Amino acid sequence: MELTPVTDLPEIRPGDDLAALIAGRADDLGLGLEGAVLTVASTVVSKAEGRTANLEDYAVSGRAEEIAARIEEVAGEEKDPRFAQAVLEESTELLIEAPFLLTETRFGHITVNAGIDRSNVPDHDLLLLPKRPTESAERIRRGFEDRGYDDVAVIVTDTSGRPFRHGQRGVALGWAGMPASRDWRGERDRDGRELGVTVQSVVDELAAAANLVTGEGADGNPAVVVRDWEFGDLEGSDELFRSVEDDLIRQALREWRFEP
Amino acid sequence: MELTPVTDLPEIRPGDDLAALIAGRADDLGLGLEGAVLTVASTVVSKAEGRTANLEDYAVSGRAEEIAARIEEVAGEEKDPRFAQAVLEESTELLIEAPFLLTETRFGHITVNAGIDRSNVPDHDLLLLPKRPTESAERIRRGFEDRGYDDVAVIVTDTSGRPFRHGQRGVALGWAGMPASRDWRGERDRDGRELGVTVQSVVDELAAAANLVTGEGADGNPAVVVRDWEFGDLEGSDELFRSVEDDLIRQALREWRFEP
Repeated sequence: MELTPVTDLPEIRPGDDLAALIAGRADDLGLGLEGAVLTVASTVVSKAEGRTANLEDYAVSGRAEEIAARIEEVAGEEKDPRFAQAVLEESTELLIEAPFLLTETRFGHITVNAGIDRSNVPDHDLLLLPKRPTESAERIRRGFEDRGYDDVAVIVTDTSGRPFRHGQRGVALGWAGMPASRDWRGERDRDGRELGVTVQSVVDELAAAANLVTGEGADGNPAVVVRDWEFGDLEGSDELFRSVEDDLIRQALREWRFEP
Repeated sequence: MELTPVTDLPEIRPGDDLAALIAGRADDLGLGLEGAVLTVASTVVSKAEGRTANLEDYAVSGRAEEIAARIEEVAGEEKDPRFAQAVLEESTELLIEAPFLLTETRFGHITVNAGIDRSNVPDHDLLLLPKRPTESAERIRRGFEDRGYDDVAVIVTDTSGRPFRHGQRGVALGWAGMPASRDWRGERDRDGRELGVTVQSVVDELAAAANLVTGEGADGNPAVVVRDWEFGDLEGSDELFRSVEDDLIRQALREWRFEP
């Protein structure tokens, strides 16, 4: 398996056609090969889709005031209620309110501050996550198809923290042209015993792998071509985000409130 | 970045020298190149270290009886109290007791059943995780050094489920010859703004990437060579496993009990 960043992408602006910008630069990297995967950071997808916002445009609700005040109280850190409002508007559920906001975005991803980015946006205060990342991935995939790249899977990625382990790692937000996971159930080991492993989240593993070569900041290359990798002859599934019913941690958080 | 599985490793037996077995097969894959990383699945590390066990050897405590009974009660699934005992002996804390056992292993990793594997062991009932995976990684790294591979980082990996997202992904259990994460704090983006991202867990991302090419079961290749990847000129840290103090989810779980 080989991963190569797509270099020299320009600063992305609203309305930019990412497939066109990437295809021209990724031909030599194997984008046209059978089974190629293209990962693209949600930051540039959001920029192309105009998902920027300014704090002054948010009408602060009582709920946002309450959250900002509580974060100030327990974390001793000033919190702009307009930012809390922005997070609320991007979220369907608050899993943790304080000392930081952990929420479920409208498309099911669980992350701090609904993934809203306050760096990386030249002319605005905020960069929101793409509204429907799987649709974004599908759109980019079709853009490649229109240019004769018939078989490119596309993954829209982000970086995110997680429980139990320090640090952030790359994760998938949306995907097209491949399933999210492959299912090893029923497969057997060398001795014929059924495997303990069940479902492997390949889109998250590809996002993590890509994040190793994108770099960040000034040297960042938001798109990566993966080649010489095979999904293989296994069942696939598109279930990635756990619902409350499938997640004991989410259930525990519903009954819990941070007390300093 | 390029990842290549090491093929044709024999079935690993207690006392086997993994560095010797891998080095002979990985020379052409770039193991000798500057900055190479070798990932190796904990299953083969455990086998080499003789970390197998049999259910009949466990003296079942009252606590293990209690846990097995409660899992049967709430999950309606028969649970061998000897297996619960094995999990207890590998763990320092139970985060969830039922409907399944989520525990912290003695080296800080949080996973279901303390990572004990019931497939993949020909002559025993159970395969335990390595006792101290970072020491295992260090031992393998020194084994490479003794054979003239001076600069190989080694990561002992496993696959594990996680909150919020379905499916398993590769994770690092232990590492040597490189830090666990790289720290982007203070770095700036194209426009000179400080980055939102903080600490990147590179050992987990490498473990996830490697898991894409190892395969599982009969076709499984437990070791992978990563080449043409650079840690870069950034600060590193070896903090990977969160303590209770650094993890609100762990705090919430301490106050929670599953009720069906």
